[in-house]
Amino acid sequence: MLIRAGFDIDFECEIDTPMMAMLSVHPSRNRDLQTPHRLILNPEIPIYDYLDHFGNVCTRLTIPAGGASLSCDFTIADSGAVDRRPPDVGQMPVSELPDDVLVYLLGSRYCETDRLQDTAWSHFGHVSGGRARVEAIVDFVHHHIAFGYQHARPDKTAWNAYQERVGVCRDFAHLAIAMCRCMNIPARYCTGYLGDIGIPPIDAPMDFSAWFDVYLDGEWYQYDARHNRPRIGRILMARGRDATDTALTTAFGRADLVRFEVHTDEIEG
Amino acid sequence: MLIRAGFDIDFECEIDTPMMAMLSVHPSRNRDLQTPHRLILNPEIPIYDYLDHFGNVCTRLTIPAGGASLSCDFTIADSGAVDRRPPDVGQMPVSELPDDVLVYLLGSRYCETDRLQDTAWSHFGHVSGGRARVEAIVDFVHHHIAFGYQHARPDKTAWNAYQERVGVCRDFAHLAIAMCRCMNIPARYCTGYLGDIGIPPIDAPMDFSAWFDVYLDGEWYQYDARHNRPRIGRILMARGRDATDTALTTAFGRADLVRFEVHTDEIEG
Amino acid sequence: MLIRAGFDIDFECEIDTPMMAMLSVHPSRNRDLQTPHRLILNPEIPIYDYLDHFGNVCTRLTIPAGGASLSCDFTIADSGAVDRRPPDVGQMPVSELPDDVLVYLLGSRYCETDRLQDTAWSHFGHVSGGRARVEAIVDFVHHHIAFGYQHARPDKTAWNAYQERVGVCRDFAHLAIAMCRCMNIPARYCTGYLGDIGIPPIDAPMDFSAWFDVYLDGEWYQYDARHNRPRIGRILMARGRDATDTALTTAFGRADLVRFEVHTDEIEG
Amino acid sequence: MLIRAGFDIDFECEIDTPMMAMLSVHPSRNRDLQTPHRLILNPEIPIYDYLDHFGNVCTRLTIPAGGASLSCDFTIADSGAVDRRPPDVGQMPVSELPDDVLVYLLGSRYCETDRLQDTAWSHFGHVSGGRARVEAIVDFVHHHIAFGYQHARPDKTAWNAYQERVGVCRDFAHLAIAMCRCMNIPARYCTGYLGDIGIPPIDAPMDFSAWFDVYLDGEWYQYDARHNRPRIGRILMARGRDATDTALTTAFGRADLVRFEVHTDEIEG
Repeated sequence: MLIRAGFDIDFECEIDTPMMAMLSVHPSRNRDLQTPHRLILNPEIPIYDYLDHFGNVCTRLTIPAGGASLSCDFTIADSGAVDRRPPDVGQMPVSELPDDVLVYLLGSRYCETDRLQDTAWSHFGHVSGGRARVEAIVDFVHHHIAFGYQHARPDKTAWNAYQERVGVCRDFAHLAIAMCRCMNIPARYCTGYLGDIGIPPIDAPMDFSAWFDVYLDGEWYQYDARHNRPRIGRILMARGRDATDTALTTAFGRADLVRFEVHTDEIEG
Repeated sequence: MLIRAGFDIDFECEIDTPMMAMLSVHPSRNRDLQTPHRLILNPEIPIYDYLDHFGNVCTRLTIPAGGASLSCDFTIADSGAVDRRPPDVGQMPVSELPDDVLVYLLGSRYCETDRLQDTAWSHFGHVSGGRARVEAIVDFVHHHIAFGYQHARPDKTAWNAYQERVGVCRDFAHLAIAMCRCMNIPARYCTGYLGDIGIPPIDAPMDFSAWFDVYLDGEWYQYDARHNRPRIGRILMARGRDATDTALTTAFGRADLVRFEVHTDEIEG
Repeated sequence: MLIRAGFDIDFECEIDTPMMAMLSVHPSRNRDLQTPHRLILNPEIPIYDYLDHFGNVCTRLTIPAGGASLSCDFTIADSGAVDRRPPDVGQMPVSELPDDVLVYLLGSRYCETDRLQDTAWSHFGHVSGGRARVEAIVDFVHHHIAFGYQHARPDKTAWNAYQERVGVCRDFAHLAIAMCRCMNIPARYCTGYLGDIGIPPIDAPMDFSAWFDVYLDGEWYQYDARHNRPRIGRILMARGRDATDTALTTAFGRADLVRFEVHTDEIEG
Repeated sequence: MLIRAGFDIDFECEIDTPMMAMLSVHPSRNRDLQTPHRLILNPEIPIYDYLDHFGNVCTRLTIPAGGASLSCDFTIADSGAVDRRPPDVGQMPVSELPDDVLVYLLGSRYCETDRLQDTAWSHFGHVSGGRARVEAIVDFVHHHIAFGYQHARPDKTAWNAYQERVGVCRDFAHLAIAMCRCMNIPARYCTGYLGDIGIPPIDAPMDFSAWFDVYLDGEWYQYDARHNRPRIGRILMARGRDATDTALTTAFGRADLVRFEVHTDEIEG
C-alpha cells in the first residue's frame, strides 16, 4: 500500500523564537519512503536535524519575528496490515528484559507509576499472561476515559486522566502506559500519522495521533487505547517515555499555532 | 586529596526480586580511582553492569529470597577544590545550546516545568545573566523549603515541594532544576557521595547526597540548593533528568532496606 | 549446559606500561553469567571498563614496572547447541541492509577488500544465494590456507594469507571476511573462548579462538573457516571490523607476555 | 566570514546501483549553516540520512539504471581564522587520554601502524613535546611525498606512500596519521571543502580536500601535511579512522563518475 502524508503548519510570533520540532518520519520508516521527506519552510530559514537519544529526528530552527510556515508532503510504502498482536504467552520476568527497555518501566512526567501502582495491581494483578494484561488495561482505559477535544490540556497526566475520566488520545496513551509499567510491562509513547484507512470515513479534521508500544515476548507491539482496535497505516514520527519526549514542536518562547492541517491518505501505487 | 568511600546495604525480601542499582561511581570519575571499584555481594549472586543512555553504570541483579547485602569500599583521587563557579556572563540563548543538552530543558517526572512556568518567570524574569539567575533560584529554593527527613516521600515533585515548603535534598534539587528549566537554563539531577570535607563535622548518619548541574557558558556547573554553598569532594554516581533516572536501587517487587551505611572520608595520601 | 572458563596471563615490563584489554565476556552474554565476571589483578592495580563503539568491554590499566598478572574464572550458561545455520534464501540486496551493518562491507586493516575484489568475484560470482556463497567462501578458505602456529605474525592481512597460503585462525577469519565483504555480504570478526566441547579432545594448549559473523536474511550467523564445521560453546568476548578492534590486549609500550593459560570446560550443573 | 559551497556530481550506471554517500556537512557545523543544506537529486529518487558511529551523516540512495545527478549549494558562516595551533606542552601520556580517542591510536586499512612503527620511532623518537612531534611529522611527510594526481590509486596505503614517495592529499594524510599513531598521538582522517581563501588563487579544478586531526593537550587540532601551513575555511564533511570511513561515495556495484564539480568561495555577508 502507498500512503501520501504530510502537513501544513503556520506559526506566528512577535520575536525570533527558537524551536525544536519532531515533524519527520521516524528513522525506522526511512527505507519505506518513496519520495524524499523534506521539511519546506517559508521564509526559507536555516534548519538542521539531529537524533535524540530515543532515535527520533529533531529539527532545530528559529521562527523569525512575524512567523513562518512549515510544510511537508511525501509518499511512503506500508504493509497495509493491521497492528500485529503478540502470542498468548506468559509475561516476561523483569530479569529477562533487555537492558535498554528497563527505562520504559520507570515513571515519567505524564506517567506517575508511583501514584498508580496500587490501582493497577488491584485491577490487573489477577490477570495472567502479558498480552491478556495489556489488553485488559487497554479495555479498561478505553472505557474509563471519555474522549473530547475540549478536555485537552498540556499538563494533564495519567493520574489526572484517571481521576477526571475525560481526555484526548494522548491521555488514553499516558494512562495505559502508566498502568503497563506498574505491572512491569515496558511501555513507550508513540506519535505519528494515522489516517482513516480500513475504517469508515470520520467527519473530523485530520490530526496527528498518539498510541503506545508494549514490550512482550521479546518484541514491541502497538496498542491504541483511544481506538481499542487494530488499525492500518500508522506512520511513526517519534517515540519516547511520554508526550514530553515526542512533542511535535517545542517553542522556547511564545509562538502561536495559527494553521494546522494534516493529511494521510491511501493512494494508487 | 584522597577520599575513601563506600557503603554497606542490606535488603530483605520474601521472594526473588529483580533489581536495577546505580551504586557505582560515574564513568567520568573512573580515571580518579586508586583502587578497583567492586560491588561485593553476599551471597555471591551473578550481577552485571550496563550503561544507560545518560552514561550511568546500571547494575542488574536479583536479590534472592531471604535477602542479600551489597557493599563497596574504594579510594579515589579528588582535586580538593570547591565547586567551580561560572563566569558572570549573559545566559546562552536556546538557539546556541548544543543539541544534546536540550533534553534538560524539558519537563520530567519530578520537575513539572509546565506547572511552574509562571511562578519561575515572575520570580526570576527580571534577573539578568545566567549565573545570577541560577544563584537567585538556588537562594530562593534554599530559603523556601525547610529541611527535614520526615518530609521525604517517593512521589514528591518540585510542584509539591514548592507548595508544601518542606523536603529533603532531593526536593531542593527538583525545585531548583524545574525553575532553571523554566528560565531556559538546562539543568540535570545528580546523586553521589558528599562527605563533611572542609566543613564542621555533622552529627547525623552519612547518606548519599543530591545536587544538580546547570549548563552555563558552554559547560556544566554544580549547584546545591540544600546547602547553598560551594563544597569539596562530590563524587558523582549518576545523573539524569531527575531522581527517576538516578535511583540508587529500583526493585521490581518488594525488597526492604534493613541496613544502609555510607562512608566518605578524606584519608592520608 | 554450564561452562567454566577463564584465563591466567602474566606480563613483564621494565617501565609502567599503559594497556587496553578486551578480556571480558561480551555484554550480549551478560545475562548468561552464573557467577560475577571479575578480572583479578596481582598486584591489585586500579582498572576500569568502558564500552567501545562496537559494544565491547574495554579495560584500561597500567602494568606497573616489573609486571602483573591478570586472571579470571567464571561460570556461564550456554544453550549447548551447535552454531545455527541461516535459511537457504537469496542474498539480501545492499539496499535492504540495515544502516548499522553497512560498515561491515567496508575494508579494514586486515581485510583489503579493494585488493581481493576481482579474486572474490571470479571464485564466488556464479554461486547463487547468500548462505551458499558464504559456505563456498568458508570451504575455499579452509582448504586454501594450511594451519600452523609458526605462520602467525601481527601484520599479516587477508591478502597476505591469500598469497602465502599459511596462517592461524585469525588469518582464516580475515580472508573469509574480506571475501564476504567483496560479495556484498556484511562480515565481522569475533574473538572468544571455544573449548573442545562435542568434539574429540585436542592435544594442544587451550587458546582463545577467532571466528566471524555474517549478516544473512536479517540476522548475524557464526561461521568458522578454521574448523569449517558448526561448533558448540562459543563464548564471545569482542567483535569488530577485524583483529585490530578486538585485540585481547594492546600495550602502548613494551610488555612481554610470559604466561598465557586459558581454560574452557563443560561442568556439571 | 560567509562561504558559499556545494557540488554537482553525475553518475552513470547500467543497472540500479546502491550507494552510500557522505556529501553532507558534518553535524559539528550544523549551527553555522545560513541556508538549509539539501541534497538535490535528478531524477528525484528517494534518499535518507543516518549517522554512522563516527557521527558523520551518511546518505543512502540507489542510483537508477542510466544514472543520476546529485547537487548541493549552501551558505555557511565561518570564523575566518586560520587553523588553531596547540600550546607547546608535553605529549599526553596514553593513560590520560579519554576512552573514546584510543581507537585513533590503532591501525586501520590505510594506516598500517604495525609496519611503520620502527620508522616512526627512528625519525621522531628524539623529538620532545606533542606539538613539536606532530609538526616534525607533518614537515617530514610534506617533503617526503611529491604531489601528483596521476599517483592516486584507491588501494594506496600509508606504507605504500612512504615507499613510493608520490601521492595525493589523501596519501599525505594517511602517512602523517599512521606516524602520529605510532608515536601514541591519536590522529583521525578528515575530508571536506577547502577553498583558496587567504592564499593566491590556484589554477586547478576545485576538489574536496583531505586533512587530519591530532589529539593534543585535551583537544583535537587540524593539520594538513599536503599544504603544511595553517589554512582558512575548512568545512568538515566527514571524519574517521582513514579514507575508508569517509569516502564521499561508496557504490555497491559499478557507477561511473562522469561529472564532478566542487565550489567553495567567500561571499559578501
